[in-house]
Amino acid sequence: MSTPTADFAAITAFVLELEKLKGVLRKNRPLGQTRYENTAEHSWQICLLAMSVLPHASEPVEIGAVVQLLLVHDIPEIDAGDVNVYDAAGRAAAEAKEEAAAQRIFGLLPAETGAQMYALWREFTTGTSAEARYARAIDRMMPVLQNLNSAGQSWRENGIRIDQVTRMNHPKISGMFPTLWPQIEQQLIAAVARGDLGAAQDE
Amino acid sequence: MSTPTADFAAITAFVLELEKLKGVLRKNRPLGQTRYENTAEHSWQICLLAMSVLPHASEPVEIGAVVQLLLVHDIPEIDAGDVNVYDAAGRAAAEAKEEAAAQRIFGLLPAETGAQMYALWREFTTGTSAEARYARAIDRMMPVLQNLNSAGQSWRENGIRIDQVTRMNHPKISGMFPTLWPQIEQQLIAAVARGDLGAAQDE
Repeated sequence: MSTPTADFAAITAFVLELEKLKGVLRKNRPLGQTRYENTAEHSWQICLLAMSVLPHASEPVEIGAVVQLLLVHDIPEIDAGDVNVYDAAGRAAAEAKEEAAAQRIFGLLPAETGAQMYALWREFTTGTSAEARYARAIDRMMPVLQNLNSAGQSWRENGIRIDQVTRMNHPKISGMFPTLWPQIEQQLIAAVARGDLGAAQDE
Repeated sequence: MSTPTADFAAITAFVLELEKLKGVLRKNRPLGQTRYENTAEHSWQICLLAMSVLPHASEPVEIGAVVQLLLVHDIPEIDAGDVNVYDAAGRAAAEAKEEAAAQRIFGLLPAETGAQMYALWREFTTGTSAEARYARAIDRMMPVLQNLNSAGQSWRENGIRIDQVTRMNHPKISGMFPTLWPQIEQQLIAAVARGDLGAAQDE
């Protein structure tokens, strides 16, 4: 039953559950800090990146919708943890966990609001709208920018090579940001030359 | 001159500058953690609170616009630091610093994008639109919810009383969320009874 009192209790339970995303650690360290960044602050930063690169998108998008996708997209990591984008086996294993987590966590909310947030999460994860493709490109672009400007901190710590970075990021980034990808590519090559990123090799 | 290369460099400088907000500490500790929360993760969390309470708003708002206000609203803290909402002298002293910080930080972006973000920040700070009033209510509601559910952690650490909480938050929250404020008020009274929040006193 939806009453202001029941809704307020449900909303409070949800936003307090979100506290846990502040403790889910990623592979990048914020510039100037020794700790690893958490998924909550990452989710904020990519929203700002999304708002910043809008003039370079190859298709019109509704940026207010994009940021809502980005705000919810990693919430299931509260249960499933963060999996490195270059860990294919780990990514596959996480999918079922993330689906269950999305149902549990968005299920804390009043029914209609929870269904809307779950739908945003599904849209980010599997959607084909311009907004979903834009959001997924942004989610990939941010750690590349961080690594390009931190002497490849998480690339080096995890032994990542340029062919992996290109294979995982080029398809998602270049379609939506065709004028930006060539610049990223150029900087990736320079990162290999500096030793910040591994050289290409056949697997 | 706006070229993809110049724009990419400017956007990169901006999003890397944002790394610093991950190191600006607030007065609340995330539930279950001993460290203080930072302003970046706070900015993310309030966006989700904003999306969660939408059905309870007393006026229609464009939620995509609200979250954009919330995403940028604390960026000037990179230079000006976080000031406790109950520290009136500190708040007044911070205003000029925040204005200068907004100009510096949004000024890192390509001109048009930077002007748009600066305008969003001004709108949050001084605007009278329903979206600005909604966003300011949310910014106030979140730490109250955190304190109500952490045995008043930051209230106790800073010696805060119920009359201060009411005076600072009631005007901003109750207008936009008239059915939620009475429930907050009831919980504030219970918090005083538990000793999580100071009793009212004349100043």
